[in-house]
Amino acid sequence: MGLVVQKYGGSSVADAEGIKRVAKRIVDAKKNGHQVVVVVSAMGDTTDELIDLAGQVSPIPAGREFDMLLTAGERISMALLAMAIKNLGHEAQSFTGSQAGVITDSVHNKARIIDVTPGRIRTALDEGNIAIVAGFQGVSQDKKDITTLGRGGSDTTAVALAAALDAEVCEIYTDVDGVFTADPRVVKKARKIDWISFGDMLELASSGSKVLLHRCVEYARRYNIPIHVRSSFSGLQGTWVSNEPQGDRKVEQAIISGVAHDTSEAKVTVVGVPDKPGEAAAIFRAVADAEINLDMIVQNVSAASTGLTDISFTLPKSEGRKAIDALEKTKERVGFDSLRYDDQIAKISLVGAGMKTNPGVTATFFEALTDAGVNIELISTSEIRISVVTRAEDVNEAVRAVHTAFGLDSDSDEAVVYGGTGR
Amino acid sequence: MGLVVQKYGGSSVADAEGIKRVAKRIVDAKKNGHQVVVVVSAMGDTTDELIDLAGQVSPIPAGREFDMLLTAGERISMALLAMAIKNLGHEAQSFTGSQAGVITDSVHNKARIIDVTPGRIRTALDEGNIAIVAGFQGVSQDKKDITTLGRGGSDTTAVALAAALDAEVCEIYTDVDGVFTADPRVVKKARKIDWISFGDMLELASSGSKVLLHRCVEYARRYNIPIHVRSSFSGLQGTWVSNEPQGDRKVEQAIISGVAHDTSEAKVTVVGVPDKPGEAAAIFRAVADAEINLDMIVQNVSAASTGLTDISFTLPKSEGRKAIDALEKTKERVGFDSLRYDDQIAKISLVGAGMKTNPGVTATFFEALTDAGVNIELISTSEIRISVVTRAEDVNEAVRAVHTAFGLDSDSDEAVVYGGTGR
Repeated sequence: MGLVVQKYGGSSVADAEGIKRVAKRIVDAKKNGHQVVVVVSAMGDTTDELIDLAGQVSPIPAGREFDMLLTAGERISMALLAMAIKNLGHEAQSFTGSQAGVITDSVHNKARIIDVTPGRIRTALDEGNIAIVAGFQGVSQDKKDITTLGRGGSDTTAVALAAALDAEVCEIYTDVDGVFTADPRVVKKARKIDWISFGDMLELASSGSKVLLHRCVEYARRYNIPIHVRSSFSGLQGTWVSNEPQGDRKVEQAIISGVAHDTSEAKVTVVGVPDKPGEAAAIFRAVADAEINLDMIVQNVSAASTGLTDISFTLPKSEGRKAIDALEKTKERVGFDSLRYDDQIAKISLVGAGMKTNPGVTATFFEALTDAGVNIELISTSEIRISVVTRAEDVNEAVRAVHTAFGLDSDSDEAVVYGGTGR
Repeated sequence: MGLVVQKYGGSSVADAEGIKRVAKRIVDAKKNGHQVVVVVSAMGDTTDELIDLAGQVSPIPAGREFDMLLTAGERISMALLAMAIKNLGHEAQSFTGSQAGVITDSVHNKARIIDVTPGRIRTALDEGNIAIVAGFQGVSQDKKDITTLGRGGSDTTAVALAAALDAEVCEIYTDVDGVFTADPRVVKKARKIDWISFGDMLELASSGSKVLLHRCVEYARRYNIPIHVRSSFSGLQGTWVSNEPQGDRKVEQAIISGVAHDTSEAKVTVVGVPDKPGEAAAIFRAVADAEINLDMIVQNVSAASTGLTDISFTLPKSEGRKAIDALEKTKERVGFDSLRYDDQIAKISLVGAGMKTNPGVTATFFEALTDAGVNIELISTSEIRISVVTRAEDVNEAVRAVHTAFGLDSDSDEAVVYGGTGR
């Protein structure tokens, strides 16, 4: 029995009852002989309430102070969780990110972890304690200021601690049963995935699956820390994310892991760009200088008669205004005709390492969409993913059609054999 | 223009509007050329809400975790205050007790400050910042755990920082105009005291005056840091507490500084104690072993016929049960008759360094109580204080009678000349 890191999100510790329920689960792991490190998020809506308070005193809160404010949230939940565990007769100590040795850069509100020195956690464990650690926060290496890690930060804290402590698994507890072959709210027949590789999980995460964030999975893959995503409300096995299937059973890699969709993006088209070297570069430099991350990028073949081409890309809707402003400033220099902005789009992605060696996948994907009457506007592929952009209104039908076409529906006889039972 | 430390209590920063109001006041001090360090308490009822949450997860919260929890309160208020100041165009940085170098012992929930190493505060000031520091909290020297300082802790933080930074004054902002000659809720004619010595303030604080706690005044006297108690809701001068009157005017020490009362105590009488050496000691050892602080102690002259005496003392009502239990256990050994417990008492104290050299004070005090028909049950005196215990129901009348008798009423022609105008 080794060391496990467990992470509980805000919905699992939303109130005193939730905290007591989670405390019992933690104590169970300890009773099973594990050393247990728990990473906890702020309770329920605490973070939103703190953000609201900040807005009341300052329209643009300073980054350093904003981080100081937000980190109060985990401080509350972790102290209460430690109390609840001690009330069950087990020793527990809570630690801030700083005390746990989570060292970050100085980029407030979205700091990156650059080192983890969990000496105090190790000592607490060796003394028989359950260690409770504040998620989402750290301390900057140069100024010793409190930082926060941004979206999904608590998951990243958990994986980083698991890596630094050489944990046998990082359990991410959430309010769903695991990672599904598609969003169960859209596809009723979506199935829980028992095991998925880091590579496929990364593609799903960057294609709109919300259960794990890309950043956390990437960290886990780099240090080869198995992640077990599961519900804090049930005792069920969830989804294992790792290099190899867990447990004794040797299982075959699934051809297709799942279908993800994303309606948070918009499409920008730069119309009538002179097809000369350097023009596209100038456009993307302008967008990059505005610190906007693009997703899909497609350049049409230029029309021979005009020597002009169109360049389209997708980006988060929240960045749309900034991108348009940045591009307008380059219009004279680049000499394009116009800009089109379209936020009524959806992205549908098919992910699976098996598609590398199964040439029929792309054809099946497009046929399914065609049969469903869904028009494809952009296409982008990687070795283990195909993504298309469609009209937003078609997204649910498109996801269901693709899910069925690849035999992913839970009651389908054609179901691809899925990996392992976990353990 | 030197360095000032300002402390704002929870009622001054109860909501976003309060925080913005306080921010303006802080910026005014900065504009006047001061270096400004601000110590802030948790917002309004935050601490009570956190205590309530703790009670929901554990009937007896662990000290270490309880401190971790409570310190979230100041974290929120200090970050918001720093944001509000920055929003007014001035630089501000917030610091936890640990970051500010407030080093304490390891007694959770009521830690004592044992050192202050404000290196980061000094740096922040030198860089032109206003430094905002979390009151009430520190970090333990041995284990580096977060501690809280107990009741009145934020005032103590402020005075300790003022001493460590060699501030010219420690301003304690509160929701009253200063220290009064009596509780204004009881004595309508009570007057604000312009200046009071550390010694008299210490006696008032230990006699029931709530504005400053004994501990904070004692710290200020030891390091000779003038305290200015004033309202955060007005621009008025408040009460200066120092060794010597502030400002240019030489003023006379008042004979009487004020009248304090306290209804939070109870009286225990041990009846029929054998009047032999060691009996009283055994009684007080039992109480001390239960970690109960006694206040007044009176031993009656023993009756020659019986060789028995009665011993009475007062103590906080909250300690009553514990004291009775401890004493019951000694009954056999000490051989006393019985215990009496009376929580319907009040203590009335007259404080003033002038009484040392004014022999009529005691007589005037007792005459005033007699004229008001108030019966005296216990008497205890120090060089600069006389305290009596009366029935609780008589307390308001007794305080008013004494206040008037010593010419303290605000419209009285006989008013004792009071010290200074502050500045």
